[in-house]
Amino acid sequence: MTLIVDFEPVGLRVEVEEHQTILEAARTILISQTNALNAPCGGKGLCGRCKVRVSSGSVSPPSAVEAETLSPEELKAGFRLACQTEILGPLLVEIPAESLSGRQDLQVEGVDVEAAVNPAVKRYALRVRPSTISYPRSAWQQVLEGLEAEFGIDGPSIDLSLLRGNVPVVPTEQVLTVTVRDHKIINYFRSYPAPKSLGLAVDLGTTKIAGYLVDLESGSTLTSDAAMNPQIAYGEDVMSRIMYCSAGQDYGERMASLVRECIRDLVQSLVSRIGADSRQVEDAVIVGNTAMHHLFLELPVKQLASSPYIPAAAFPMQVEAHSLGLPLAPGALVYFPPSIAGFVGSDHVAMILGSRIHQTDEPTLGIDIGTNTEIVISTPTQLICCSCASGPAFEGAHVRHGMRAVEGAISEAKWTSEESRLSYRTIGDAQPLGLCGSGVVDAIAELVKVGIIDNKGLFDRDHPCAQTDGDGKNAEFVIVPKRLSGTGEDITITQGDVVAIQLAKAAIRSGTELLLSAAGLAKDDLARVLIAGAFGTRLNLESALSIGLLPSVPIERFENVGNAAGTGARLALISLPERKMAERIARATRYLELTAVPEFSATFARSLNFPDLM
Amino acid sequence: MTLIVDFEPVGLRVEVEEHQTILEAARTILISQTNALNAPCGGKGLCGRCKVRVSSGSVSPPSAVEAETLSPEELKAGFRLACQTEILGPLLVEIPAESLSGRQDLQVEGVDVEAAVNPAVKRYALRVRPSTISYPRSAWQQVLEGLEAEFGIDGPSIDLSLLRGNVPVVPTEQVLTVTVRDHKIINYFRSYPAPKSLGLAVDLGTTKIAGYLVDLESGSTLTSDAAMNPQIAYGEDVMSRIMYCSAGQDYGERMASLVRECIRDLVQSLVSRIGADSRQVEDAVIVGNTAMHHLFLELPVKQLASSPYIPAAAFPMQVEAHSLGLPLAPGALVYFPPSIAGFVGSDHVAMILGSRIHQTDEPTLGIDIGTNTEIVISTPTQLICCSCASGPAFEGAHVRHGMRAVEGAISEAKWTSEESRLSYRTIGDAQPLGLCGSGVVDAIAELVKVGIIDNKGLFDRDHPCAQTDGDGKNAEFVIVPKRLSGTGEDITITQGDVVAIQLAKAAIRSGTELLLSAAGLAKDDLARVLIAGAFGTRLNLESALSIGLLPSVPIERFENVGNAAGTGARLALISLPERKMAERIARATRYLELTAVPEFSATFARSLNFPDLM
Repeated sequence: MTLIVDFEPVGLRVEVEEHQTILEAARTILISQTNALNAPCGGKGLCGRCKVRVSSGSVSPPSAVEAETLSPEELKAGFRLACQTEILGPLLVEIPAESLSGRQDLQVEGVDVEAAVNPAVKRYALRVRPSTISYPRSAWQQVLEGLEAEFGIDGPSIDLSLLRGNVPVVPTEQVLTVTVRDHKIINYFRSYPAPKSLGLAVDLGTTKIAGYLVDLESGSTLTSDAAMNPQIAYGEDVMSRIMYCSAGQDYGERMASLVRECIRDLVQSLVSRIGADSRQVEDAVIVGNTAMHHLFLELPVKQLASSPYIPAAAFPMQVEAHSLGLPLAPGALVYFPPSIAGFVGSDHVAMILGSRIHQTDEPTLGIDIGTNTEIVISTPTQLICCSCASGPAFEGAHVRHGMRAVEGAISEAKWTSEESRLSYRTIGDAQPLGLCGSGVVDAIAELVKVGIIDNKGLFDRDHPCAQTDGDGKNAEFVIVPKRLSGTGEDITITQGDVVAIQLAKAAIRSGTELLLSAAGLAKDDLARVLIAGAFGTRLNLESALSIGLLPSVPIERFENVGNAAGTGARLALISLPERKMAERIARATRYLELTAVPEFSATFARSLNFPDLM
Repeated sequence: MTLIVDFEPVGLRVEVEEHQTILEAARTILISQTNALNAPCGGKGLCGRCKVRVSSGSVSPPSAVEAETLSPEELKAGFRLACQTEILGPLLVEIPAESLSGRQDLQVEGVDVEAAVNPAVKRYALRVRPSTISYPRSAWQQVLEGLEAEFGIDGPSIDLSLLRGNVPVVPTEQVLTVTVRDHKIINYFRSYPAPKSLGLAVDLGTTKIAGYLVDLESGSTLTSDAAMNPQIAYGEDVMSRIMYCSAGQDYGERMASLVRECIRDLVQSLVSRIGADSRQVEDAVIVGNTAMHHLFLELPVKQLASSPYIPAAAFPMQVEAHSLGLPLAPGALVYFPPSIAGFVGSDHVAMILGSRIHQTDEPTLGIDIGTNTEIVISTPTQLICCSCASGPAFEGAHVRHGMRAVEGAISEAKWTSEESRLSYRTIGDAQPLGLCGSGVVDAIAELVKVGIIDNKGLFDRDHPCAQTDGDGKNAEFVIVPKRLSGTGEDITITQGDVVAIQLAKAAIRSGTELLLSAAGLAKDDLARVLIAGAFGTRLNLESALSIGLLPSVPIERFENVGNAAGTGARLALISLPERKMAERIARATRYLELTAVPEFSATFARSLNFPDLM
């Protein structure tokens, strides 16, 4: 039975089937809008963030999850979790502002890089005929003989699941299309031409998971999307997730399933968007930091949490997609590029590959800023990298009014002398809700520039524009007064926020300096500085330079390479030589363990200060 | 708590733990005796053949299975199924004669054949040291680098289950032993030298499953054993099992699990017998007829049941042991040699390999007699084979007083002119219970010789020694009168038995003739005739020749090659070149479909007669 659901205040109407959930209904219509219904847990009742109010209409009774998540008052007022609530009749649903967040400002498009298409899987068309007493060969037998005779494939074999699932004789002569990888048939179609051969590239991040669907024949990216990493429910950072896994017998399995389900959903959404089927996805590459890689593959992680931070497997791996819960083509494998160290994962290898920094003929620095920031220096004779524990401040965490880079986040700020205040700009030009990383960096850089914050990071309490908070103990600076804020509170920069940013930028700055010194270079030798990652894209370079986050080289030497890791993953997907190149990069890159460098502490301490700009 | 159980009438005493079943108790003591407690289903409550009487003592109450299998009277009298009954106190248990059958006269030792040992798996010893900041390599990383650097193994990888299961760092420097197959580490031991590398060869027959445990270093067979194929519960012949599988969604899965469990138990029993662990079993080869092969691998079987009888997969296959429910070494594969046709399976390929018939320099015939009889002719220039539907008469089925070749079966018979009767001999010299195949052939050959049966197979009712059964309609010949028989009935040869043997021998004889003709040979061209299989071992050649079962060539040209299929499986296990040879044999062997030969019907009809011996 088809039912009508109206969503307010967005004013959208959707037709659904009885017993669909409100979340499912919302997804069919809100997914492509700027505003979407929050569901970071993917609709599993874990996050409680898809709260809506059923204004009128008939729905299923509250579930146990809702009874736990919502207060009795909320339930009485008609509030429900959209993921838990089945539609039983025509509905009017109200989505509260806090549930209707902006879409992630996700970096899913990398820089375009040229590469010859040469994927791990190849398609072949073979004519088969009916089996008879005088020609007693199954269709599979004919295909194998054809692969050997017509295409010179030595000793071909067939994935067992294909043999099991299909009738081994054909009623009439026909052409089959088979997909072969490493002498093994991993997929087939009873037609020629067959539906497109697709590949999946995934950048499996601690916070977000980006997926790309690629045409393996042309090498072009057909569509891409991203989702929050659902493991966030077990900790924002990798350490807490590792600790969680070490706490119980099957906790590792649980963590792995969370991400697998998320990627499975991502694949489904990607293929359905282009009208394809997940059976067409015949190859996959997944890159990620070492912890995400290990958690996904259910490898031991405990040793990643303490010095010397040894990955169980830093080498490249190939694993059957089905054994990882990914319903791709029957015999599809997932390729996991190698990593370099416990805190320099295959995502960094993919970043090097995707940014082409390894091919540079002048000293080049590459920085991928995140909770963990990886830095690499490439010269014609060496590749050397390190990892800095920069923390989540640049992603808006550990900052009083920090938030992710979603709609309503202040992403830019500038001092306005006339008004003695910071003017700002929000993502989506929406009412301000908080500051994302680039907004915090801008704000602090500007406050340092005008002297409200000194070069040790302390607020000048005597400055006319500074103020202290309620009990007068802590200095802060109001950017958005209560009356203009979307949260009903002042949006401020606090002394604590400044310290968080100082720690983060000192980690990156000292890493850069020690890496330069290990490479035998001075900062002025750097011909280029490549900034990768989502935060890097939004970052105001002048602000970053003025607080000392980045090395002070002329601004024109900086270059934004976007999500180079995603680009690298796609390169490894469409080209076997690129895959080999990733393996060579991992082997060739020297890893500098910063905590083992004697000058580390002193350099870090010195880097905490802001450069004297007076 | 340890309890004493006494078994009568065998007069054996055993100590067991409380809650063990009576079957488990019986197995610990009776397994090595001539007499063992029947349990063809392996103790799963399926067959009802382990019936015992608890004379005194405390046991668990009857299970649902027992309530169904045993009559209320039996239960009242203390009868129980040994597999279902837990021991709760000291017991006196009586084993009825029908439950205490002889052990199968199983052909588990093949002819010894020389082959250079060169298995698919190889062992390597590698020194690994603790991981440190300056040497940040996991034990696995060191092993992979060592395999490449020290042993020249290109691009080695590791089975995922090994990576998952083990600590990736070692506390002190040590030597690991790893087992490598096709560049992949499939097993490891934290010691050097490590426990023996073992291999498993299985001859998976319709009726019995024979397993051999082989030392992969020396190539020698350490121990062997056999079990009944538990699929027998779903039909004695392959056709009824195929039909059963086609009847329901998961019936194929059920059939596969039955055999997998049986082989798993066989492996456990084999390794424990030599004090080893199943983790040491690092490679396996399974041969069987095409239907058994398909049922085991859960391949489609329906098309095997109708012309043109096409195997889904006649080509060689390698499948992960764990995915087949076999708990061998973590990454062990099972190799399935190729088959030739729907009714000429990999067991026949193994028989050719094991008998060395393919290397013959004179025309040689090979016959493996069973429910399905495979015949091959080998000359220096050709290999040609066929399959005959000989039926189960030679295995004692479809014969009124037929039985398998177990204790109490009449296996030999000879006419005694003085007494005008057939003298006989039973297996184990026990009281006669029936006739096994060789006994039936002997008896009929002798009765034909003295004219009680004419050359059309009809009893001469006027012959003084012939008699008719109760209602006078059917002729029969009494071999053992009631008073001497262990069953309380006359043991006879009936007119129906003669017909069954005529059909069986006609199938084989006509197959032999048509195959000779297809090979362009006459029977006198045959330099040797090799007889393989358990029945062939017991068969009296003179009787077989006199009824026309075998081609009439001088008796000295016959040669018994025992269980050549088992030998072939072991050759493929210990030597990669032998495995390749099996694949070449399968490709090179021409298959003759008898039913497609125009002369088939006439030849078959002519072969029904017994040769005129007058």
